[in-house]
Amino acid sequence: MSNRVEPRTLAGFMELLPNEQILFNQMKETIEKTYQRYGFLPLDTPIIELSEVLLAKAGGETEKQIYRFEKGDTDLSLRFDLTVPLAKYVAKNYGNLSFPFRRYQIGKVYRGERAQKGRYREFYQCDIDIIGDGELDIINDAELPSVIYTLFKELGFDDFTIKINNRKLLNGLFESLSQNIESIEILRIIDKIEKIGKDAVISELEKLGLNNEDINKIIKFIEIDGTTDEKLEKIENLEIENETYKNGLNEIKEVIKYVRIFGIPEQNFRLDLTIARGLDYYTGTVYETFLNNYRELGSVCSGGRYENLAEYYTDKKLPGVGISIGLTRLFYKLNELNIIKAEKKSVSEILIVPMMENLQKPIEIANTLRSAGINTEIYLNNKKLKAKMKYADKLQIPYVMVIGEDEISSNIFKIKNMETGEEKTITSEELKNANNIFNENILKFTGKA
Amino acid sequence: MSNRVEPRTLAGFMELLPNEQILFNQMKETIEKTYQRYGFLPLDTPIIELSEVLLAKAGGETEKQIYRFEKGDTDLSLRFDLTVPLAKYVAKNYGNLSFPFRRYQIGKVYRGERAQKGRYREFYQCDIDIIGDGELDIINDAELPSVIYTLFKELGFDDFTIKINNRKLLNGLFESLSQNIESIEILRIIDKIEKIGKDAVISELEKLGLNNEDINKIIKFIEIDGTTDEKLEKIENLEIENETYKNGLNEIKEVIKYVRIFGIPEQNFRLDLTIARGLDYYTGTVYETFLNNYRELGSVCSGGRYENLAEYYTDKKLPGVGISIGLTRLFYKLNELNIIKAEKKSVSEILIVPMMENLQKPIEIANTLRSAGINTEIYLNNKKLKAKMKYADKLQIPYVMVIGEDEISSNIFKIKNMETGEEKTITSEELKNANNIFNENILKFTGKA
Repeated sequence: MSNRVEPRTLAGFMELLPNEQILFNQMKETIEKTYQRYGFLPLDTPIIELSEVLLAKAGGETEKQIYRFEKGDTDLSLRFDLTVPLAKYVAKNYGNLSFPFRRYQIGKVYRGERAQKGRYREFYQCDIDIIGDGELDIINDAELPSVIYTLFKELGFDDFTIKINNRKLLNGLFESLSQNIESIEILRIIDKIEKIGKDAVISELEKLGLNNEDINKIIKFIEIDGTTDEKLEKIENLEIENETYKNGLNEIKEVIKYVRIFGIPEQNFRLDLTIARGLDYYTGTVYETFLNNYRELGSVCSGGRYENLAEYYTDKKLPGVGISIGLTRLFYKLNELNIIKAEKKSVSEILIVPMMENLQKPIEIANTLRSAGINTEIYLNNKKLKAKMKYADKLQIPYVMVIGEDEISSNIFKIKNMETGEEKTITSEELKNANNIFNENILKFTGKA
Repeated sequence: MSNRVEPRTLAGFMELLPNEQILFNQMKETIEKTYQRYGFLPLDTPIIELSEVLLAKAGGETEKQIYRFEKGDTDLSLRFDLTVPLAKYVAKNYGNLSFPFRRYQIGKVYRGERAQKGRYREFYQCDIDIIGDGELDIINDAELPSVIYTLFKELGFDDFTIKINNRKLLNGLFESLSQNIESIEILRIIDKIEKIGKDAVISELEKLGLNNEDINKIIKFIEIDGTTDEKLEKIENLEIENETYKNGLNEIKEVIKYVRIFGIPEQNFRLDLTIARGLDYYTGTVYETFLNNYRELGSVCSGGRYENLAEYYTDKKLPGVGISIGLTRLFYKLNELNIIKAEKKSVSEILIVPMMENLQKPIEIANTLRSAGINTEIYLNNKKLKAKMKYADKLQIPYVMVIGEDEISSNIFKIKNMETGEEKTITSEELKNANNIFNENILKFTGKA
């Protein structure tokens, strides 16, 4: 064959080696199991949608990033998040769903961002949302931090903080200003305070046309400090009287109260008045989650409350609250920083290495182990022992059973623990209940501080 | 809001209701777990690839079906199977893999086929392949039917047949003919015998230019009947002397011998000399799998041996053997024929229904149950009992615990089995070990004849 093509993968598309893939899948499964633990229903929508449907709402920056193309006469786009497909799904299947509709979706989404290290154009989002029919109690906004808490504990992390705020507080504050400025514009600027600092925020607010008194009011608000309870007291005493602010105050008090009832320890959540998520469509509660020892990762799980999920598709009012984890980027960062280690190189718990021509008995034993629920591989190729053991070594399969004529005639088999070198003998009858001799070989995440 | 967009999903793209999705995911998980049981490693390649890479080999029918488009200056395509991405992956990562490289991949692929009922443009393939470095023993060709057998048993089927053949037998037969005709052309015709019948096959072979003697030889061959052993004896006695045929004969005898050693019962496999898979790239063993009571489904799991996986990308010789299940179509057909039933409407095992304002205790109980590994939902919205019970009913959550002031003060709680109406009482301490009172609520597949 001439004219070979160089085998390569597109920049911005993650493609892992087997050991990394095993670890990635473990994280994905932990997320999925935790979502199910809270009763969220699975959903799997197409990756391709009609552009007219997918882009009903989009515009600006988002639209530029879309993978959009024609097939025949049809204008198609790849999904860029899992929320728009959810909105379409709920509007389309409204009559067949039970509300509150609690769904999770874990799947790939596509954004043609400028390629750079750690930025992906194809990446997994792991979302949950709770959608109400007409209304949705504020207590749901406290259940999601509980899911986040359980999830990051399951992933092996202890030192993380779920930051909680309510956009109505900020919007109420802006309403109380002497000037009438688009609150979204102010939010965009405030949202950057961690990145650009206070002085730059003040100067940007000035450019927006705000006077000093209003700017002081904003800065004073977002600089409110203390414990969560101290902050609640301070914002209550600010004497901002408009409805928006009062609603925000009531909501955040309820959310904080129930977050405690849900059992989230004080050190794992915090009221943070600077969190705005200005570019998103949230209208009430907002969340961001930080791993405190790895602040450079940014928020690893964000979300919030929105007033109306599917207004572009239906006149039904469908308020909701949701969170999302960008798993591909999170995995990349955790792996790069050695916070997680892709140590497991095989899904097999045991490798059977036959040393004779007649494979009858080794295959029988493999079948027995598999029936007992043990992931079992049998080396089927006619190689020297050395080559076979090299394979076991490279894949670091935890147990190896070498079977020769001696083992067959004595009906006593040796299982070797490849890490400790320890050997256990066992008869082929005993193998039927072999589960108990295998240690759980699940890789521990090492996310602890 | 005016200008609403009608929420709709593209034709040829499967989008399921939650109960169907639960069942689909159960099948997908069964497939994945079985693949892991045999030690296959997970792989997840991008859905988008460079057209130059993805289409290195493609042509004709396949190329027309590709979703191909430009983004910026880059010519991109969506993958149309999982084999080409595997070839690219193995060629690219050759130095980092252990051979034989055993991988599974379960993912969506894209083919812009003409839309018709039960045909999908986006569908899941569930593949396993074993790739050798330079060589791969024939016994691997017998392990894959063992995976197929275990898998369809796990899915709840008993009456299925794995049909096995070897292309070298057919190719050797064609070599022995008096005329020199492209064997792929003859294969294409033979492959259709079940569909179009013997007479039509003869007439198509005549059109191809074969004389009567050769046609008779072919027909006589594919009409060889009897048990698998009788067929083996008959094809051995045919006295076709070329190397291709002799190799095919030796290979199929080895495969059949080991298929038996792998413990596949006689009624679940058969040597079928008509199976050619003419349009595929197989060079030796080929498989097709049929559910005997639902022949109209066609082959539900097919595959075979190929000489060289990645010749378009590398000069390394990488022989392999693999199988593939088209899960989306299989699910659609099984569901349509009522062979499987999407009865489970929730992933929750229990719904907690609080009947008071203070949710402290109900939330504590939900947390306790979740910690015990039980998927638990708590009804958090302030509705009348009737509305809450309607939600439990619609989702058919197997257990419900209504909590009122009485339960709180007595610390005795009732768990109601919603199917039998039976109630169990339990204290909040006992809930910590609640696993045992919940029956496994896994839906049984009803694939039995």
